[in-house]
Amino acid sequence: MKAAVFLLLTLLVPAYHTGAQCIIDNVVDLKVQSAISSIVSSTLAKAKLLCQDVSARGALVSCPAGYKPTGCACGMACGSWDIRSDSTCHCQCGGIDWTAARCCKIGLE
Amino acid sequence: MKAAVFLLLTLLVPAYHTGAQCIIDNVVDLKVQSAISSIVSSTLAKAKLLCQDVSARGALVSCPAGYKPTGCACGMACGSWDIRSDSTCHCQCGGIDWTAARCCKIGLE
Amino acid sequence: MKAAVFLLLTLLVPAYHTGAQCIIDNVVDLKVQSAISSIVSSTLAKAKLLCQDVSARGALVSCPAGYKPTGCACGMACGSWDIRSDSTCHCQCGGIDWTAARCCKIGLE
Repeated sequence: MKAAVFLLLTLLVPAYHTGAQCIIDNVVDLKVQSAISSIVSSTLAKAKLLCQDVSARGALVSCPAGYKPTGCACGMACGSWDIRSDSTCHCQCGGIDWTAARCCKIGLE
Repeated sequence: MKAAVFLLLTLLVPAYHTGAQCIIDNVVDLKVQSAISSIVSSTLAKAKLLCQDVSARGALVSCPAGYKPTGCACGMACGSWDIRSDSTCHCQCGGIDWTAARCCKIGLE
Repeated sequence: MKAAVFLLLTLLVPAYHTGAQCIIDNVVDLKVQSAISSIVSSTLAKAKLLCQDVSARGALVSCPAGYKPTGCACGMACGSWDIRSDSTCHCQCGGIDWTAARCCKIGLE
């Protein structure tokens, strides 16, 4: 009888380990896939372009930290501009009175 | 012998519970981490800037719902503009004949 | 005694299966929800607007592959432009000497 109990144990324990692993794998695969897809989609749907305008006297104006200039406007009807250091609008016409930057970033609304 | 079977049961059952919990925790940790990272990365890679142009006669034009203006263009060579209510391009030169807005949003392509 | 061992097995095996399933479900639900939310949030926080300027002689300049123009600048102080094929800045004033595009895309920094 002791042999029978020992045999039972040696059969049960490895079976338990491999069986559990297999069940867990399948359950995790199915539940994780659908849970992730659902949360990722609903979170991404909240990702928006957040923008603001900044303007200043003179030929230069910088976007706030974290924002990037996507376009610039200039006083004196001037449409010639460039962007310096990925952050500052610079109007090129002589004697410019004001410069404005359209500044955007990605955020969650 | 009855005592042996009882002993076997009292040993097996708690071992099963705590052991299973531990295995599940580890398997979930590993599988979840890699599954989430992979789905998040591939979903984010599909996030694109979707843009369109709109134009209208006069000094004002608005972006469609959900889109934000990132820059404006004006008739009469005018480069002086501003954005009203985070949605409308306004060209400032007198007697403007047309105004255009570059309108963008974040979307999945 | 053989009957007792057989009985033990027939009782243990189904109990193991349904019990494990239940434990796994609950563990997966809790762990997956928090793990996904945390990874999605930290990955989205790395999503940035990546921008660059390109310019060329003449009235046309295109953004690099994957980038979209968000605004255009023109030589000769000209502020009248349009975007062709969702990828190319076109300055409309006659005899334009240079055209620049502000080009952006969504990327992970």
